[in-house]
Amino acid sequence: MTRVVRIHEQGEPEVLRFEELQLRAPGPGEVRLRVHAIGLNRSEAMFRRGAYPVRPKFPTLIGYEGVGTVLALGPGVDGFKVGDRVSVVPNTSLGDIGMYAEEAIVPVRSLLHAPPGLSDVEAASIWMQYFTAMAIIEIGKATVGDYVIVRAASSSVGLAAIQLANWAGAVPIAATRRSDKAAALQAQGAKHVIATEEADLVAETMRITQGKGARLVFDPVGGPDVDMLARAMGDEGILFIYGGLSGQETVFPHWPAALKGLSIRGWVASAIWNKPERYARAQNLVLRGLAEGHLKPVIARTFPLAQIADAHRFLESNQQLGKIVVTVDS
Amino acid sequence: MTRVVRIHEQGEPEVLRFEELQLRAPGPGEVRLRVHAIGLNRSEAMFRRGAYPVRPKFPTLIGYEGVGTVLALGPGVDGFKVGDRVSVVPNTSLGDIGMYAEEAIVPVRSLLHAPPGLSDVEAASIWMQYFTAMAIIEIGKATVGDYVIVRAASSSVGLAAIQLANWAGAVPIAATRRSDKAAALQAQGAKHVIATEEADLVAETMRITQGKGARLVFDPVGGPDVDMLARAMGDEGILFIYGGLSGQETVFPHWPAALKGLSIRGWVASAIWNKPERYARAQNLVLRGLAEGHLKPVIARTFPLAQIADAHRFLESNQQLGKIVVTVDS
Repeated sequence: MTRVVRIHEQGEPEVLRFEELQLRAPGPGEVRLRVHAIGLNRSEAMFRRGAYPVRPKFPTLIGYEGVGTVLALGPGVDGFKVGDRVSVVPNTSLGDIGMYAEEAIVPVRSLLHAPPGLSDVEAASIWMQYFTAMAIIEIGKATVGDYVIVRAASSSVGLAAIQLANWAGAVPIAATRRSDKAAALQAQGAKHVIATEEADLVAETMRITQGKGARLVFDPVGGPDVDMLARAMGDEGILFIYGGLSGQETVFPHWPAALKGLSIRGWVASAIWNKPERYARAQNLVLRGLAEGHLKPVIARTFPLAQIADAHRFLESNQQLGKIVVTVDS
Repeated sequence: MTRVVRIHEQGEPEVLRFEELQLRAPGPGEVRLRVHAIGLNRSEAMFRRGAYPVRPKFPTLIGYEGVGTVLALGPGVDGFKVGDRVSVVPNTSLGDIGMYAEEAIVPVRSLLHAPPGLSDVEAASIWMQYFTAMAIIEIGKATVGDYVIVRAASSSVGLAAIQLANWAGAVPIAATRRSDKAAALQAQGAKHVIATEEADLVAETMRITQGKGARLVFDPVGGPDVDMLARAMGDEGILFIYGGLSGQETVFPHWPAALKGLSIRGWVASAIWNKPERYARAQNLVLRGLAEGHLKPVIARTFPLAQIADAHRFLESNQQLGKIVVTVDS
């Protein structure tokens, strides 16, 4: 029997329930893993609450990112062997695999070899954050001379974007609601921090950029502040919206977009892993960035699996700086 | 004394008032023109009504596109001489110059030599429409295998976009409200016509594109139908919004944009003429396209200057197919 977390109904973190299940043998193209560490994603809290476009079929497993060791191979699995330490890339639908568990059945297309030199906790944190933030490189072509506004900068993806912007020679400007995280964000590579509830983001950005505006904005929030972000941008900039955390509609910022030729661009990390060439390129970049020290996972806090509900509470508290990782005792 | 049209208050076409003015001599970098033909733009009707972001200072001149002959040069004018036949590019603010007139003072930066082989009426029609539609080439990189949805297809800019798409080997899909203009649009190069009030644009586009969706959309309307347009698009497409004719807010189409990586991009023709390299390239393309027959101005109807109010009424009636041009007797 395997200890797994399932949810039987939508709701607060208490609905994350421990159960003992008989896990099936891995099918064709699948492996069975012993899970060592689980990277938490905000989408999982939304899935738990019922606020995600993928709705659970109850009871459902949960969790799709992490690190483990291959215990058994299904038929036709190439490239991995029993005992390999692997990362699980969150390219499955929420509920399809259950990484909140001691063991999990995972399709081989979700596996990458775990990067050498990273702890389990670090290796469980990297793929969602860097593949998501890779938008600013792959699509935005961030480069020397660019200014990049990173909204919700203290999230794992926000910090990944700050690291990628710095690597590309661009100047990251962290936008965060209050200034209490400013020093921590600067320590993590943000050249500038603007607390949007305390300062005028447009005026501050124009001051920092000497009137030029930001060429890139990376925003998981959307909603009414997008107009302000657009007014802080420069000619032919790209404003990525990669989430809807505001819960509000985003009105297209008509006049700033028209007069400056701005693009408001939707983005999800699947745009990396669904395209084989791009996926290969992004993997190589992330591994090289980690090896060369341009990229470094920031772990906000770890929780043991037994405290998964507390981990979700912390995830939804917006107090963290970086990735929340849950560890599984073997 | 010169006969000019001015407006003293915002309102219906009747506010377009004929007056006799003593025109000043051209200043540094300006010429004085005899006007032969005036290209009408929808922005002028909005300016007249008070629905344009540039508000008139009353009384104000009106009109910024057309063709004429140079009558006199101000100091420091190079590249043009008295007697030259010139096009006036609408790169001034509405109200700055008055092309609704027998004569006008125009800055030399708004002049291009009138293309040989075009009548005055044709030459008065080309620059706004082709520079605006050039978005699909310059930014959208329309090419063989692309499908391009052109909304408000019977406008002068819409027809210009259809011509440019065909020249690039892309397939233009005209979106128009009712099917009464379908045959005329097909005769003007639209490979497909979808009457949005009579057919399901998403289903029709998916049928035409064999499930691939349109890579480009070119839309001067905005508003609630943008979500439908986004659902008719394919992977990493670009939806240009170059006007707000709906008068309604455009909600960013969050999920289609996220899942397909769509860009919703603002656009105005000044993005061509404000960038010297792009301006030179676009001029050359338009002249070559006209000379080679890829581009051909479509004149909906001409009016004499004395009937300028009727011309505005027709402009606002949405009955036209192509450009409305006003002729000036010399």
